[in-house]
Amino acid sequence: MIKIAVDAMGGDHAPVEQILGAMKAVETIDDIEITLYGDKASIEKTLKPHDRIKIVQSEGTIDMGEKDPIRAIRSNRKSSMAMALSSVRKADNDAVVSSGATQALIAGAHILVGRMKQMKRTAIAPVLPTASHKPFILLDSGANLEIKAEYMVQQAYFASIYAKEVLGVESPKVGLINIGTEEGKGRDLDNEAFQLFKSNKHINFYGNVEPKEVLDPPCDILISDGFTANIVMKTIEGTAKGMGKMLKEELKRGILGKIGLLLSAKNLVRFKKRMSPEEIGGAMIYGLKGVVIKAQGSSKADGFYNAIRQAAHVVRQDVIDKVTQVIESEAENE
Amino acid sequence: MIKIAVDAMGGDHAPVEQILGAMKAVETIDDIEITLYGDKASIEKTLKPHDRIKIVQSEGTIDMGEKDPIRAIRSNRKSSMAMALSSVRKADNDAVVSSGATQALIAGAHILVGRMKQMKRTAIAPVLPTASHKPFILLDSGANLEIKAEYMVQQAYFASIYAKEVLGVESPKVGLINIGTEEGKGRDLDNEAFQLFKSNKHINFYGNVEPKEVLDPPCDILISDGFTANIVMKTIEGTAKGMGKMLKEELKRGILGKIGLLLSAKNLVRFKKRMSPEEIGGAMIYGLKGVVIKAQGSSKADGFYNAIRQAAHVVRQDVIDKVTQVIESEAENE
Repeated sequence: MIKIAVDAMGGDHAPVEQILGAMKAVETIDDIEITLYGDKASIEKTLKPHDRIKIVQSEGTIDMGEKDPIRAIRSNRKSSMAMALSSVRKADNDAVVSSGATQALIAGAHILVGRMKQMKRTAIAPVLPTASHKPFILLDSGANLEIKAEYMVQQAYFASIYAKEVLGVESPKVGLINIGTEEGKGRDLDNEAFQLFKSNKHINFYGNVEPKEVLDPPCDILISDGFTANIVMKTIEGTAKGMGKMLKEELKRGILGKIGLLLSAKNLVRFKKRMSPEEIGGAMIYGLKGVVIKAQGSSKADGFYNAIRQAAHVVRQDVIDKVTQVIESEAENE
Repeated sequence: MIKIAVDAMGGDHAPVEQILGAMKAVETIDDIEITLYGDKASIEKTLKPHDRIKIVQSEGTIDMGEKDPIRAIRSNRKSSMAMALSSVRKADNDAVVSSGATQALIAGAHILVGRMKQMKRTAIAPVLPTASHKPFILLDSGANLEIKAEYMVQQAYFASIYAKEVLGVESPKVGLINIGTEEGKGRDLDNEAFQLFKSNKHINFYGNVEPKEVLDPPCDILISDGFTANIVMKTIEGTAKGMGKMLKEELKRGILGKIGLLLSAKNLVRFKKRMSPEEIGGAMIYGLKGVVIKAQGSSKADGFYNAIRQAAHVVRQDVIDKVTQVIESEAENE
């Protein structure tokens, strides 16, 4: 059995949607057991008892807008997030899924789960939808704003193994986010990373990729520093939101337009769903001793379910062990 | 009369669309004269003679994919781009419009038009559409990959004057592109820029803006270093392209969907047009002694016309002089 800790109290729609997601997960995935960390009384209002779901009482929650995440975790060791994270360290569980505050989850994972030996920096890596139906991994989407090129190499190892084991891509291609495709483009960091990727035998390096291909990228992994990749992620989000708004305004113009919109309603729902990262799962925090998945703060039941399914898959495929082997053997060779 | 130099040979659809754009410009704007720099014989195939359009013969063109822009400009002083730029230095013209290679145009403008005294760095500043019908200026979209915070302040002066004089915004608000809205977010550069903007009397500083608001920003100007802002611009482009592709695929599903699509055709064209930066104009290169506007490489006649209209407006409003006054008075106060 794969044992998954769920932070039931984190997220915009917690705990209801988290509980519904967990219920769907045990109903559809046979080899998992879930422990919900949260307030027992409120959880029981929604939860239909199931022999593979149990509840562990927590005290207090980490606020979604938490400004000092390290302090928040340190002073709330009994919070649902902290208890779920600690349960992985103690080997009570194999993975954690939380839609709580990102920076608190990253800080908490460092303190309570611990960083993989030899891994210099953690990273947060969402999997995003593309126009070609083949998702890509974006990293580092915000854990390290400034980073050395050599640390990006370790993150690329992680993403390559993840893409192979979890996304089923035979030889995942890594692209460096840059402002031009030619070698030599970009800042010093980009040029150093380019050279390291190019000469590394564990990385199938595609070269530079401009974000004007971001929804139809020629590779499976797009990598940059945590500031840049976070900007890319938020720009995708902002553009999608803005375009959605404009589309809605324009499509309802005129009587024919209104009829057209009505007839297109089902297709527009499918379009919206296709754009949603929740359909794929959450963002994994790379570089920890355990599996920690950040589901979107706005997750509804299906999105949270997808993050649980993803966590189980990562455990099933032994991703952490496989990454550890590569990173430790590389460290020995240095 | 405002005199505008047009690089007729630069751009994916040159010279035809550039000529058609110029013809539309003299027909609709009374106070401009245009000089087309390019190959006389090919221009005359498209141009309908007009008393406010003349042709100056050039030799050779700057390749759109030019890898060494400085060399290209230096060794092609008779190219349409170089001659158009030089004509502004010689005061034969008041402004240049080109849809030629961006980096060559920036390099050429430095060499042939010259940088404004006291202006430390140039910047390239497209004006982008938003969901709220109020465009915003994005800078620096690629002239300086790495920059000091104090140089960003000068660029913000320029953009503020541009927004007031050309976009008609009374007291333009400047937002700093960042990964979070709170003060203290981001890299060292972002924090330094935040402090400088906050304390500057010429800048109406809004604070940090996350790109998830990029198509509906709470301010008129969004600023970052040239790498980041270029990444933002290209991510908007890539997301719009990818979403457009997905939308097209989804909307034609099923018979009802196909009828819906047909009825929505007009609205979808309007939607597409609303997303197009060409509807607003080109990107101005800030910090030069003259007005240089980069129209999109893929410009068609209407897009190129909009860039000419914009160039005329910038000249009419005396933007360069107004910026020079602020920058020189600030330099004296230091």
